[in-house]
Amino acid sequence: MPGFAIGVDLGGTNLRVALVDEQGTLLEKLTTGTQVSRGRDRVISEMCDDIRALAAKFGATGGEFAGIGVGVPGIIDMATGFLRESPNLPGWENYPVRDAIEQRLGTRVVLENDANAAAMGEKWLGAGRHADDMCMLTLGTGVGGGLILNGRVWHGMTGMAGELGHITVHPEGQKCGCGNRGCVEQYASATAVVRMARELSASGEAPELADALRENPEFSSKVVYQMALQGDEAAREIFRRVGRALGIVVAAMINIFNLPMFVVGGGVASAWDAFAPALFEEVRARSFVYAATAPSDAGKIERNRTIITRALLGSDAGLFGAARLPMLGTEANPLRDVSASAERKTA
Amino acid sequence: MPGFAIGVDLGGTNLRVALVDEQGTLLEKLTTGTQVSRGRDRVISEMCDDIRALAAKFGATGGEFAGIGVGVPGIIDMATGFLRESPNLPGWENYPVRDAIEQRLGTRVVLENDANAAAMGEKWLGAGRHADDMCMLTLGTGVGGGLILNGRVWHGMTGMAGELGHITVHPEGQKCGCGNRGCVEQYASATAVVRMARELSASGEAPELADALRENPEFSSKVVYQMALQGDEAAREIFRRVGRALGIVVAAMINIFNLPMFVVGGGVASAWDAFAPALFEEVRARSFVYAATAPSDAGKIERNRTIITRALLGSDAGLFGAARLPMLGTEANPLRDVSASAERKTA
Repeated sequence: MPGFAIGVDLGGTNLRVALVDEQGTLLEKLTTGTQVSRGRDRVISEMCDDIRALAAKFGATGGEFAGIGVGVPGIIDMATGFLRESPNLPGWENYPVRDAIEQRLGTRVVLENDANAAAMGEKWLGAGRHADDMCMLTLGTGVGGGLILNGRVWHGMTGMAGELGHITVHPEGQKCGCGNRGCVEQYASATAVVRMARELSASGEAPELADALRENPEFSSKVVYQMALQGDEAAREIFRRVGRALGIVVAAMINIFNLPMFVVGGGVASAWDAFAPALFEEVRARSFVYAATAPSDAGKIERNRTIITRALLGSDAGLFGAARLPMLGTEANPLRDVSASAERKTA
Repeated sequence: MPGFAIGVDLGGTNLRVALVDEQGTLLEKLTTGTQVSRGRDRVISEMCDDIRALAAKFGATGGEFAGIGVGVPGIIDMATGFLRESPNLPGWENYPVRDAIEQRLGTRVVLENDANAAAMGEKWLGAGRHADDMCMLTLGTGVGGGLILNGRVWHGMTGMAGELGHITVHPEGQKCGCGNRGCVEQYASATAVVRMARELSASGEAPELADALRENPEFSSKVVYQMALQGDEAAREIFRRVGRALGIVVAAMINIFNLPMFVVGGGVASAWDAFAPALFEEVRARSFVYAATAPSDAGKIERNRTIITRALLGSDAGLFGAARLPMLGTEANPLRDVSASAERKTA
């Protein structure tokens, strides 16, 4: 039997726990609502119950258990396993999440930032599966990022690497919650798409958007994308702005890293067709490294070419990536050494 | 006897060849003018003569010869050893520099971009000597950069990584020779300092600068720095612009990498006192990762703190870095295997 691992994607909305084998086959997935309001102890207990339930099933198969990877939103101190900041998990700041999980399970777990886990998932089974080095930008409520260098997540000194959403694209631009002005998150997140729609409609230049904002109580970036698809010029302009901001960042990343693979994921990536032309236009103009390495066909995999493409795994990327982490093993996370105790505890 | 290596710094003005031991002691240095006008064959022949002369001296000492590292300005295709572009070495484009040197010497050499070599030098013996990961920005005629990750130069897919001078800081800004607008090179190079001085003096806002430009045939960024030191407000404003542009880039790099060490070198770095305050102000405002990891004292080395500091080795950084490269050894550059033939040929 092949080896297995358990991946956890702890979001502000859903808690998902999956059993995945070494080939990347999803064997079972448990999804529950994350009842954040009931407190972090409750959420972690439910997570651990789900992990135990899946591990018990694994116990019968005889495959080798590689360990448990947990993706959480927010900034993790990799040395201590504390969650430093997490806007989507109020009350979890400066909480020792890794210890809390490990104490309940009696085994080590690999804790990872959710955007890094998604990057690892796309690298393992998705758009980046042919690349050892890649960068992923995740366009959701905010903009997150993950760097995979030499096949591993690049954490940096304190685990704060990959904060790509807070790269400045317009020095005098929109104020950002991080304290900066003109972060790419202010132009390429779902939140930013809605804000730009409000701004354009308030300016009187976008009557159709103004109507939609007034009439649709569930107005969202998806509505703006639908309107762009239907040819609304203001909606199309919003996605051109998304593409230009992303293009400035991707061009910078190409000039810095000369990576073979840039993957754009997250909910806003479904509007790829609406923003990609502006993205590529900026990248071609702003990165001579890209100009020297652009593929003859944007979607084609060629040697020594820079691919910029959509993510393939959707919202499962983080779940698969979390499961992948213990399979990779590290000296800092010697999971194989403690998997026996995990079996004892969870079987 | 300790091991030795030969480092070469091939600039557009000077050719420098040095014998360096494993402790970083400079044992001998040969400096000659790079007579670029006499053609690349002549320059490479002179370089090889100097290398042979130093290697012959080494032969008598009995230390182990680690190999030869050569830093050249421009973009190197690491796989083939061709120089792809080199504004400072006209006529060398698409020339197989590594092969040309290796054929003359009968041994392998490590070819490296000069900014990468300088970064390696600062990492080995200079400001970055306590850090395994660092980023260096070199402010000269242009702005170059080098990334050292896990103690090695990060080359990227085709050797074009580290083009930090062409990161966009002002999307609608000054046109750059690379085809982009608003590259940091247009605000933080020696060339940019002089251009900004001309712009300010043409605007009538900088009478002292206008006088200096008219009266001093050798007007340069150094003159602007001298005037800033003497309190000229326009000159001081120019260096604030340098610092702001650098701060935008350094903040982005911190958010991307979470590296412990950022080193600023090159000729313009001598004006550190004039631009550093604006640099730090931007970095603090634009990088919450820096805000979370700033040292209590900007110059102090502390664990898990982000240091931004001046380079220490001046123009020798590239020479030391070039010598260091063969000492590190790589599977791609098995220099120790061929050092015996180097001895035979050069002794």
